[in-house]
Formats: sequence, structure tokens, C-alpha cells
Amino acid sequence: MSKELETKAINTIRVLAADVVAKANSGHPGAPMGMAPAAYAVFTQMKFNPKNPNWINRDRFVLSNGHACALLYILLHLFGYDLSIEDLKSFRQLNSKTPGHPERGLPGVEVTTGPLGQGISNAVGLAIAQANFAATYNKPGHTLSDSFTYCFFGDGCMMEGVASEAMSLAGHLQLGNLIAFYDDNKISIDGSTSFAFTEDVTKRLEAYGWDIHVVEDADTDLAAISAAIKEAKKSPKPSVIRIKTTIGYGSLKAGTESVHGAPLKPDDIVQLKKKFGFDPEKFFDVPQEVYSLFHKVSEAGAAAEAEWNKVFASYQKEYPELGAQLARRLKGELPADLEKVLPVYKPEDAAVASRKLSEICLGKLQAELPELIGGSADLTPSNLTRWSGATDFQSESSGLGDYSGRYIRFGVREHGMGAIINGISAFGANYKVFGATFLNFVSYAAGAVRLSALSHHPIIWVATHDSIGLGEDGPTHQPIETLAHLRAIPNLMVWRPADGNETSAAYIKAIESTKTPSILALSRQNLPQLAGSSIEKALKGGYTVYEVSNPKLILVSTGSEVSLSIDAAKVLADKGIPTAVVSLPDFHTFDAQSSDYKLSVLPNGVPILSVEVMSSSGWSKYSHAQFGLNRFGASGKAGDVYKFFEFTTEGVAKRGQQTYEFFKDKPLISPLLTPF
Amino acid sequence: MSKELETKAINTIRVLAADVVAKANSGHPGAPMGMAPAAYAVFTQMKFNPKNPNWINRDRFVLSNGHACALLYILLHLFGYDLSIEDLKSFRQLNSKTPGHPERGLPGVEVTTGPLGQGISNAVGLAIAQANFAATYNKPGHTLSDSFTYCFFGDGCMMEGVASEAMSLAGHLQLGNLIAFYDDNKISIDGSTSFAFTEDVTKRLEAYGWDIHVVEDADTDLAAISAAIKEAKKSPKPSVIRIKTTIGYGSLKAGTESVHGAPLKPDDIVQLKKKFGFDPEKFFDVPQEVYSLFHKVSEAGAAAEAEWNKVFASYQKEYPELGAQLARRLKGELPADLEKVLPVYKPEDAAVASRKLSEICLGKLQAELPELIGGSADLTPSNLTRWSGATDFQSESSGLGDYSGRYIRFGVREHGMGAIINGISAFGANYKVFGATFLNFVSYAAGAVRLSALSHHPIIWVATHDSIGLGEDGPTHQPIETLAHLRAIPNLMVWRPADGNETSAAYIKAIESTKTPSILALSRQNLPQLAGSSIEKALKGGYTVYEVSNPKLILVSTGSEVSLSIDAAKVLADKGIPTAVVSLPDFHTFDAQSSDYKLSVLPNGVPILSVEVMSSSGWSKYSHAQFGLNRFGASGKAGDVYKFFEFTTEGVAKRGQQTYEFFKDKPLISPLLTPF
Repeated sequence: MSKELETKAINTIRVLAADVVAKANSGHPGAPMGMAPAAYAVFTQMKFNPKNPNWINRDRFVLSNGHACALLYILLHLFGYDLSIEDLKSFRQLNSKTPGHPERGLPGVEVTTGPLGQGISNAVGLAIAQANFAATYNKPGHTLSDSFTYCFFGDGCMMEGVASEAMSLAGHLQLGNLIAFYDDNKISIDGSTSFAFTEDVTKRLEAYGWDIHVVEDADTDLAAISAAIKEAKKSPKPSVIRIKTTIGYGSLKAGTESVHGAPLKPDDIVQLKKKFGFDPEKFFDVPQEVYSLFHKVSEAGAAAEAEWNKVFASYQKEYPELGAQLARRLKGELPADLEKVLPVYKPEDAAVASRKLSEICLGKLQAELPELIGGSADLTPSNLTRWSGATDFQSESSGLGDYSGRYIRFGVREHGMGAIINGISAFGANYKVFGATFLNFVSYAAGAVRLSALSHHPIIWVATHDSIGLGEDGPTHQPIETLAHLRAIPNLMVWRPADGNETSAAYIKAIESTKTPSILALSRQNLPQLAGSSIEKALKGGYTVYEVSNPKLILVSTGSEVSLSIDAAKVLADKGIPTAVVSLPDFHTFDAQSSDYKLSVLPNGVPILSVEVMSSSGWSKYSHAQFGLNRFGASGKAGDVYKFFEFTTEGVAKRGQQTYEFFKDKPLISPLLTPF
Repeated sequence: MSKELETKAINTIRVLAADVVAKANSGHPGAPMGMAPAAYAVFTQMKFNPKNPNWINRDRFVLSNGHACALLYILLHLFGYDLSIEDLKSFRQLNSKTPGHPERGLPGVEVTTGPLGQGISNAVGLAIAQANFAATYNKPGHTLSDSFTYCFFGDGCMMEGVASEAMSLAGHLQLGNLIAFYDDNKISIDGSTSFAFTEDVTKRLEAYGWDIHVVEDADTDLAAISAAIKEAKKSPKPSVIRIKTTIGYGSLKAGTESVHGAPLKPDDIVQLKKKFGFDPEKFFDVPQEVYSLFHKVSEAGAAAEAEWNKVFASYQKEYPELGAQLARRLKGELPADLEKVLPVYKPEDAAVASRKLSEICLGKLQAELPELIGGSADLTPSNLTRWSGATDFQSESSGLGDYSGRYIRFGVREHGMGAIINGISAFGANYKVFGATFLNFVSYAAGAVRLSALSHHPIIWVATHDSIGLGEDGPTHQPIETLAHLRAIPNLMVWRPADGNETSAAYIKAIESTKTPSILALSRQNLPQLAGSSIEKALKGGYTVYEVSNPKLILVSTGSEVSLSIDAAKVLADKGIPTAVVSLPDFHTFDAQSSDYKLSVLPNGVPILSVEVMSSSGWSKYSHAQFGLNRFGASGKAGDVYKFFEFTTEGVAKRGQQTYEFFKDKPLISPLLTPF
């Protein structure tokens, strides 16, 4: 490779970045121009096949500073992914393949980034998945997995707490397959990093257990970048290559915040093109030899995939059981009849906390699903997520487990956990991933939960201690707004099962999901097995759990309040108000049912009262009146707290009666009926 | 002080901790027993007056590992705060003064803690406030402020990203008035910290710019702890004293996770008491000489306050203007007629983005309010929060500002910012604090926002780019669920003003608030000044902004969709459907109005359609039908994106007509009318 051609290739990226952002009149040219040499160095030694972006043993690249996406799109185009020069011209336009931040689902985009700190944390998850995958399937002479995860991140990511959490864990886990580039350009949106960010980043990363390589002049010293990558690949630790770059390198405004998030001026682009030997009259101009250079790399990747396919074919013969299992996983299929392993409960079975019911489900599922992996943010004995006989996912040198282990000790790092499980899910190979904490602390990870939904990662949150029923820990730990928040996120299932059958149903839906994440809100306290529940009914997301003929009132409820509502319905019947009870464990699943079915559950003409011991916000979609808790909770014994807030049989019955009387002379249509 | 008495005092704390948790049969004895010597060392040299817990120059103490609250309650009792031995016996019982985690509002509790990482971040805020307060008011010979902020935190806090963010900023700001104790006990809930947390904490903190002192045996070496405190007080940097302790020191289970969160067994308590020379038959036993020891410290604090009062009296004479200003602040009063400085708009005034209207308000308010302080999480040029002539809050040695500065460069640290502004607010002296970011990224700080509301910190979030109207940055940056989430939090105002008058009203309510925080959701794009708006009307939280006689339809809307709704109302009138428009900029404020007023705005008998370009969840409380955006947004020009989702005059009018037709034969009651 001639040095001249390499320089031309790098400058092609820079000039294209200027053109792409200028054409859109929106975007971030600075980081792409500054990081072009590093991008060149990384991508030209990576192993990937643009014709099959899902090849399981590809190296993965994550752009954590997602605002620099012009860089990623340009690379994808140059290497021959399904992204044309016309797509580059549509940068940041509605319904283009080149949106304002990278979105998973576009060819070559591993994860959705933009919200800072998420990408580097996803990369930690990708590296965990690769380590687990390799430890599970590699055999002597059959290396099925040896890929690396590369990540670019900037000062913004480094300031975000989510990245701190994930990077600390990556150091602990000694993820040598993870190589990140810190774009040390000294500029953020407010201006110089000296305004707010003067910590010693190298020292901090060393404290986390990472190897650090510094490239003093990453604007031009390609050899130094390449040498650092080689060193990093040998390290048994995760590595950061700290590249000192000039934001907007080549622009008249280079090194200032004004090239961060605004297009270069036309005259600046002219001088840039002249400086780099490009024709200033031409736009989106890629020299053919530059295409050729990049396409050779892609061809080598395609050849590597072909070679891998041979190894896998041989593997399937030599290790038929593992081979078949892996083939199934790569097809994204579950074992046949998986749902049959989950327990079915009868009303005479003992009352059990749904966190304990969840433990039983996890235990059954993990035995069938080698792709089930997850853990807790330091609440294992409370979340009940570690199955008997589990091996921890740990480095062998720790003496605490190994990489084939599927139980992850996340530490007290909820947001990091959320972003890491998104990354594990993004690896592919059918990984089914869960993270666990108290329901209230899912909020700490709101940034990551939103991205699970937006990016279609079908991950699972095991969210225990789901109400004031957690008792003494008090209002700081008692969720109030949490379900309203989560239910308002598009493409998210939020299950709050009322008993054993509903918990099994929630796990079936969560595990079978391929594009929708799930929150499982689970009780600390025991819940009775309901006579009217079944897995089949619960799979509809909502159903009548306590039927009466010609009800004059319907109570609609979830989780621990369903049995309470049934008790109240019996009291109301005695008062001459025949009352049915609907269990609505997941709004999202219920909403997807047929209109007829839904109206059979929540029909016209009957007043409906919702009963859930947290914010009633969102419930008027399914009810005419709401009994909730629109204030913070209180510290005390769970029973005392429930009583204090009148979430008792009498308290519910009283409000049921009030609802009945209020509406009895008023014609009512189902809240499900809408004008459009 | 005899060494023997000191030891007895420390062991009194330990034995009480065992009794308190055992009596409740719930709680965390381990950390109180391990940290008792450090607590003794800190509190006996602190300056505070239990008879006036609000004395502005008190030293402040924050228990960031809030689960160890038995320790705090015991200290408050022993030093003579309004917390009796009976209160200790009611630990974790409903409506006691000793709830499961410390709650602000109880005497001597500076901030609510329990959610990990918040307390240490609040402590950074307290230290910022003290530095600003001292820089603003201290004069030669008149030192009005020289207090320290002390904080205890454990491994859990150290793992949380929010703490990383706040501690990095504290190091940058060189807050020498902040002294934190890291309870290095090697145990978390899952067991040994070796499972998940093996980073080099000392090195990480040094990287942040903190001084670190290590006490190798903090179970017994009181002298070493005291010496470290003395050193830390001299340091120009924030300090961590890393105390190596044994969790549950004295218990048979000392050093294990089983003393973390469960009571000691009765026989364990017996041996503990015997070991420490206490009578095992006695419970809640405090030797009189121990009370006397602690009360002497409190008396010295009372004397210090009396001395301070003299200095302040002299100050008021010598510096009458500053003295009067400070006296006003200490009374918690605002300058008279403050609201008159805020601009009033007429319909002929230009259309302006509400982020820009916010900038005007902030500029006016800061000139009147020396207690206004705040900043942005590295989005200053987008949030428009830095007023002309502002001084940055920075250490003098940075050359970028000084501690009298009131503009804080938070860096890309939303969660840290949220917790820090809570801390500033908790300092007292009427601090009015704001933090700024994009509305979508308030979610990163959800843990802190919830605590603002729970703890009654009247802080303000300036949350710009409040919808798909931000355009090209796309769905990763476009809020959908955010308002539904925030509106479901009790005690939180969520303003989304439609024009200049509404923005002024939002600022008035936010600044005048003493117990309720505010989110101000502000547009990136220009909004016209509405003919029907006024500050007075908007102060009610909701009002009819576009009146028609005998409306057959009401559109209820917020922010940028209000003018759109008015345009649609005009189209609907042409179609024979007289349509009124209600602007509902803040649900919380509207809910507090009289029932009559509210029903005059959203009356019986008229179909009501809500129009807001995000999740419609929560809107059925005020409407019969909802036009919202129950999916993620899209990257593109703002106008194109609005059009794509049919948030246009025609799109709203169409749905208005559908709503009118759907309900025209159906009797309707106002959604405000409820059975209970």
C-alpha cells in the first residue's frame, strides 16, 4: 500500500464528511475529519463482509460518539455496504438510510448511538457476548469465534456515568477483545474541555484495569495508530488507544467548537479540497483507486467468511450436538416446545412471590437455552436471578468463574447493565439477555431502556420489589411513576404478573420476542394462585380473571392488586353490585389483540375502575375511574403501608361502590372505543 | 477526653445499631457498626447546633449509603436533635421519624438518600453552594461562611455512574470544602466486592483530582481517622478518607454480607454487648457519660452559632446592602414584585423559540436574584442558559472564573447535574438552581429528578429541544415518553409553554416554588405569540386560549401544538364545528385549581381532543380522545417530520372532525369528573 494512496483515502473521508454535512446543512463534520486516520487504520485491518453484515465472526465497530455518523456512513459506503453515494447525499433527510444518528437495522450499523456513553457500554456487552460465545463453542482446530469489538468514543462519552460503570466492569472482566479509541480532541459543545473536564483520563482508565496506548499525533501518524492496534490486540485487558486529534482537521476552523456541530462554510470547503488535492468544483467525489483500496479489504473479509463456513461445516460433523445447537441459534430459533418447560399452577398451589416464580422460570429456561445469559446489579439475593449450579461469567484468572459462565455480576451499575445487555443482545447468536434490579431503579437506566425499545433489542429486565409492598425500605425505593413511564415507551412490554401462570406467560412472551424488550415487574410479597388465570389467557396481555354474569362493575388490575380486587368483587357482590375482575398484566400485548377480543374484556355499558398501587397515569385508557397512588409511598411494614393507603379489600370495595354509583345513571362507552 | 470514654461512646453507637435494627426486625446493622469510629471522629469535630438544624453556617453531613441510616438516627439522638430514644424504637415503622432511609425534612437530615450515588453527588452540590455563598458574602473580618460538607459513602455509591460524574466535576472545581469517607469494607449485597468491583479506587479518585488519605484500621484507630480529617481540611482539593472497616464489627458475622441487610441474631447481640462491656439484658441503653460527651459538642455548636449571629449583626451594619440581601435570602423571601421583571408579549410580537424566551427570562431573573445559579450539561449554546456577562463558577486557579460565579459548566453529566442541583438547593440561603439539557436527556437523570420531587427541592430543569421539532438529530434525541414519565411523578411541575407569556408564567411559578421542582420543556423552533394568552391565565396551569361561543369541540394542547390547534380550530369552524382551544402548560398547577374553574375550562357535554406530539399516555385524564405520537420519531427537517406524522393544521382538523362525529350522539361528561 503506498503511503500516498493511504493519505488520499483518509483525505477522501475528510472531504466527503465536509460535503455530506454541507449538503444536509446539518450535522457534525469535526469528529469525522479528526478521526479519519483512526477510522482508516481500524477498518482496513478489520474482518467483515459487507455482503453479509450479520456474519457471526465479524469484527464489530461501534461509534459511541454517534453524532459523528457521517464518518460511519462514509466508511460503510466506501467498503461496499448497501449504502450508495445517493444515500450519503440524503444525509439527515426524512426516511433516508443516513439518519442524524446511527440506527441499528441499517446495514453495517451494529447499535444505535447518539445518546452519549451508550455505545461504549454496548461495546462492553458485545465483548462479553463474544467471550461467552468463544468459550462455549470454540474447540481445538475449530476456532468459531475470535472477533474483536472496536469502538470510537469522545470526551462526552467519557464524562457520562453510564460509560464509567461499563468501563469499570470491562476492566474487572478483563475483556481483551475490546479495543476502544478515545478521541482526545479537547473540544466539546461548550468549548474547551478545560471548562469542565480536566481529570486524568489515562489514569482513570488504568484504575479500571484497562491498557492505555497514546498516539500523540493521530491527525497524521497512521503508523503509530496501526502499531497501537497491534499491541492492543495482544493485550489480555481491554484497551483504550488515546488518539490526540484535531477536530475538523483541515478546516479553517480546525481545533474549535465551531466545527463540532455545524457545516463548514463553502469557502472553507474549497480550501479544504485544494489543500488535500481534490477538485473544489466536485462534490461527493471518490477517486476510483480509493474505492479499490477499500473493496480489497471487503473481499478479504468475504474470503474469511467463506473459510469460516468451512470450519463450521467441519465443526458440525465433529461436534454434532453443539453444532446443531449453534446452527439453531444462528437461525434465531428456539428449541421446540420451549414453553412447555414453564410451570403451570393450580389455585390450590401455595402463594408465592412473583420474584420467586421468576426464579423458577429462569431456572427452567436456562437449562434449555444456552443462549440465556444475565445477572443482577448487586441484588442477586433479592432479585433471585441466579439459578442453582450457575457459573459466573468471570475471567479465569479471577478464580470466580470463567467466560463460559452465564451469570453476570454487574455490580451496583444499573445504567451500565442496561446498556451492556443491549450490547450482548446486539451480538446476535440468539442471545437472550436479562438484567435485574428493583423496579424503582430501572429508572437509573432509563437512557438504556429507551434504546432497547428504539433499537429492537429483545432484552429482559427482572424488576423485583415492584410496589410499596417492598415495605420498610420506604419511598426512596417504592416505585410510583415507574410503570407509567415504562408503559409510555413505544415497543416495550411491561409485564406485572398476578400469579404463577401469568409469570410463566410473561417469560414465554419475553423469551419469544425478537424485536421488543420486556420489563417484568415482580413482587417481593407472596401472591395467591388465581382460580381464573391460565398461561393461555395471560398470553393475551389482558383477560377476565374473575367472571360474573351481567357485571355492573369491572375492576381492572395488575400484579399484587388482582387478588385484592377479586376479594373486593366478592364484597361488592354481597352489596348487590355484581363485579368482574380483569387482569391486565401487559398493556402492549393486550393492545395488539383484536378489537372484538378487547371489547369482550372491557365492554360498553359497564363502569370500569382500575386498581393499581402506583400512579394512575395512563390507566384512563382502560378505565372510567382510577384507584392508584398519586403520591410517594412510606416506610413501614408492607401490610401497614397497604392499609395506610387503603389498598385493602374494604378500600377497593368502597371505591368500587363509589364508581358504580357515580356512573349508574350515565351511559358509558368502553374507554377502548376511539374516534380514530 | 479519655480514650476509654471515646471507646465507650463508639461502642454505644454499635450496640444501639444492633438494638435498633433488631427491634425493627428490618434494616442494615453492618455499616453503622463498621463506620461508628469514623462517625464519632467526624461528628465530634463538626460545628452544628441541634436546636437550630437550619443554621446556615453549620457543617453538613450526608449519609450517601443511606441504608446505614440507623447510624445517622443514633447520632442525631445522641447529639440532642429532636429525635428521642422512642423514635429509635420506631425505626422503619409507618409514620415514624426514623424511616427506612433518611428523608429530608426530618431534623438533622440534610438530604434524602438511599438510591446509591445520590448522596455523594448532593454533597458536591452542597460544597458548590458553600463555596459560592462564601465567595459572595465573606468580607475581611466577617467570615459568614466557612463550613465543610462531610459525606459517608460505600462501594455501592462508588460503582454508580452518577457519583462518577459528580466526583469528576468536584475534582475539576477543586472543592476543598468537601470531605468524604469511603467505607472500604469489601462487601456488597452479592458478597465480596471481588465479584464485580476490583478497580483501583484510590487511583481513580486521584485521576479525578481528589486528595486521598487511607486509614488502614478504621475499626479501632480513631487517632488516624482524626488526623486524616485534619489533613483533609487543609487541602485545597476535595478529599476522600478511605477507611478500611469491618462490616458488622463486633458481630459474630462481622466481615460478611450477612450483616449487611439483616438484623443480628439475639445470641449475637448478647455476645456483642458483653464484648463491649454492656449489659446484655438492657436494650437501647445509653450511658449518661456518653450523652454528656456528645451534648458538649452540641453546646459548642450552639455557642458558635451565637457568635456567628454577632458577626452577622455587625456585617449588616458594615455592609448594609449585602446584609439586607442576605437577610432576605435567609428568610427565604424573594425581592418584591420580582414577577414584574419578566416580559409580557403581545400577539404582534415576533415568533420566538421558547428556549430563547427562557434565555430572556433567565437574564432578567439573574439580575434581581443573586441566589440564581445553574448551568448546562455541555449544551450551553443550544439550551441558551448563559446570560450575557455571566461569570463561570470555577476555581480561581483555572483562570476561567471564580467561586462567586453563578454559571456552572456541568460537562456531559446529566445525572450528576441533577443530583448536584438538588444538593445546591439543600444548602439553604434561598438558592434557586437550574440545570439544562435536551428534554430527552432529562431521562438520564431520572434517579435525581425523582428525588427532587420526593425531597421537595424546588430546582428547575431547562429542558430544550422538547419534541420531534428538534428535527435532524432524530429519534435518539426526540422525546416521546418523557412528559408522560415526568407528569406521573408526584410533586413535580412539568411546564410546556406555548409562547412568551406562558414562558414568563412558568418561570414565575418555578422561581416562587419552595417545595416543588419544575421541568420547563422548551422548543427549539419559533412559536408565535398567542392572542389569547396572558401571564395571569397561564399561572393557572390551564385556560381557554382560543374561545368560541358554544363550542362543539375542544382541543386541549401544550407548547408548540397550541398554535397548530388554534389554526385547526379555525378550519373546523369553517366546517361548522365551532372549536375552542385550551392550553394546558402544566398539569400539576391546573390540578390545584378549584373544581369550578377546571370545569369551566373542560366542561361537561363537549368532546375534548388532546393534541401533543408525543406519547398520549396520561392525556385521557383531560380529554375524550387523543392525538399523539405513540411511536419513536424520525430524523429529518423539523417541518418534514411534523408533516410525516400529520401534525399539521389539516392533520389536527381531520382528527378534530373525527372526534366531533364520533361523540356527537353520545352524552359526555367532563373527564375531570370522578367518583372519588
